[in-house]
Amino acid sequence: MDKIAIIGMGLIGTSLGLALKTVQLKDVQLVGVDLERSRANKAHKMGAIDKVEGNIPTAVQDAEIVFIATPVMAMKDVMETIAHRLKDGALVTDTGGTKRDVLQWAKEKLPSRVDFVGGHPMAGKETPGPQNATADLFQGKAYCIVPGADASQKSVRVLMDLVSSFGARPYFIDPGEHDSFVAAVSHLPFITSAALVGCTSKSPQWDDINKLASSGFRDVTRLASGDPIMHRDVCVTNRESITHWIGEMIRELERIKAVVSKENNNQELNELFEKAFVEREKWLMGAPSLVEAKMAADRPKPPGFTDMFFGEKISKKLFHGDEGKGGKERKG
Amino acid sequence: MDKIAIIGMGLIGTSLGLALKTVQLKDVQLVGVDLERSRANKAHKMGAIDKVEGNIPTAVQDAEIVFIATPVMAMKDVMETIAHRLKDGALVTDTGGTKRDVLQWAKEKLPSRVDFVGGHPMAGKETPGPQNATADLFQGKAYCIVPGADASQKSVRVLMDLVSSFGARPYFIDPGEHDSFVAAVSHLPFITSAALVGCTSKSPQWDDINKLASSGFRDVTRLASGDPIMHRDVCVTNRESITHWIGEMIRELERIKAVVSKENNNQELNELFEKAFVEREKWLMGAPSLVEAKMAADRPKPPGFTDMFFGEKISKKLFHGDEGKGGKERKG
Repeated sequence: MDKIAIIGMGLIGTSLGLALKTVQLKDVQLVGVDLERSRANKAHKMGAIDKVEGNIPTAVQDAEIVFIATPVMAMKDVMETIAHRLKDGALVTDTGGTKRDVLQWAKEKLPSRVDFVGGHPMAGKETPGPQNATADLFQGKAYCIVPGADASQKSVRVLMDLVSSFGARPYFIDPGEHDSFVAAVSHLPFITSAALVGCTSKSPQWDDINKLASSGFRDVTRLASGDPIMHRDVCVTNRESITHWIGEMIRELERIKAVVSKENNNQELNELFEKAFVEREKWLMGAPSLVEAKMAADRPKPPGFTDMFFGEKISKKLFHGDEGKGGKERKG
Repeated sequence: MDKIAIIGMGLIGTSLGLALKTVQLKDVQLVGVDLERSRANKAHKMGAIDKVEGNIPTAVQDAEIVFIATPVMAMKDVMETIAHRLKDGALVTDTGGTKRDVLQWAKEKLPSRVDFVGGHPMAGKETPGPQNATADLFQGKAYCIVPGADASQKSVRVLMDLVSSFGARPYFIDPGEHDSFVAAVSHLPFITSAALVGCTSKSPQWDDINKLASSGFRDVTRLASGDPIMHRDVCVTNRESITHWIGEMIRELERIKAVVSKENNNQELNELFEKAFVEREKWLMGAPSLVEAKMAADRPKPPGFTDMFFGEKISKKLFHGDEGKGGKERKG
């Protein structure tokens, strides 16, 4: 019997459990642990895990694979806690929204006899907790895979196969690239959502204004209802990229403000909104799984290896000019 | 047989027709007209109207009620076109996203023998056209009613009853207040969406970055896929309020950027994201119809008069201190 342990039974941890259950892995026991036992119990009741463990060291003991699905800032302590209980050759991975700090902590805290391969599923919901978890949360979505410097190719492949098995699309990427890219398309959007709520709700007339807010306001501000702790941790561990992208957003708004306030601006306004329209449609065309959630759930599972894609840097590292390291299957 | 005419069979005009059809008005003929006849034909096929008219003057002839559901900047010409064909005492209304200019045009272009009562349903979709229209688009949503200075109380009441009948919530509001409020919760959100697409998609790395964009990016940018013409017209006719609110948004982003770039910012980041979280939840609690679209469709139709609410200024004008005018039932 192989063992997979999930630390943190929130939305992501519980969805991971449910997704892994759909794959029907043979002779695998899924165990889960959470600081709040009621969350792990809930996940167990939902069928996301086979067993609730009472503490983290017991959960990871003898596990072949460990998913750390806590908020990012808790991961350093979790790694310290599990370091001496991990099985030789275990694959340790995480689901955090930033990767540079997490990989650094793994290097500092985890023994070289285990493999750390960072992970980040590009999927979520603003409604947190195990009760909102679903088996298809990752279906058709990118799943970043960010191997630690010394991770064996075997462990990388195991994680890649696992996430492919439940329909996610493995995306190999360098930690620096990861943090910079997700700052643009994941962190900037939630900051934008929070800023829109912040600037409107502090108006003295908000009690009247908010009665007119409708589905547009609801969707653009959706991410502001996400877990504040998750947002905080992402900001603390990705400060530089996030401030860069907030700066870009401010510059873009300044540019639009200048166009709106001009006289005879019809043509420029046309161009501005048409460009945004076209760029978004182009993006959506390349991301069919995002057009309609139901469609994604109905799509056939993508075949493991053909459906993955690679960031440029990491692809070079994995498949070219790094063959000496590539041959190794296991350290320690 | 009474006649209701809808000018402009796009998403809103066609949804209006479908919504009015659900009410089963007795002895009422619904006619529709569009510069692109294929759109009116489509609306007819969908059952939104009883008859397609070939031109605008014929459509409004003998109509008791006329809905102008074109883009805002086309309304001035439409009013000029219909002015001499309107029936005495007809109620003319619109569905435009701004109200100050529209009411001004109505005053200039429409004869005093008809009543203009501006309207603005706070509902929409980023996917335009009659093919995306639905009968429940306005269900549970606010519907701004902005009477022209000389509109009779009877006409105001007719529009109020009509929109209540298909489940919208009448919201009486002064044109200046309207344009300022919707700039915050409707126009700023679509500009924010367009700005987010604009600033990210012009990155030289966008072809790699966009593969990581997921449901969060999709939702925050949804409004950027709205009709560019509609967005342009709103900007042209609400310049001052929109630039004010873009300025507020920039200020808020500057504030957040300063917090993110600080050392030891955990507490401040907590407060920032918790505040946004709480404010959005408070708003959603007051807007139950927006929490889940399906729920809204299942809700019972709100009873006409108990479910409306009033902006402060307009409520004073309609129900206090203005009784001399209030008594009049019909001009001309």
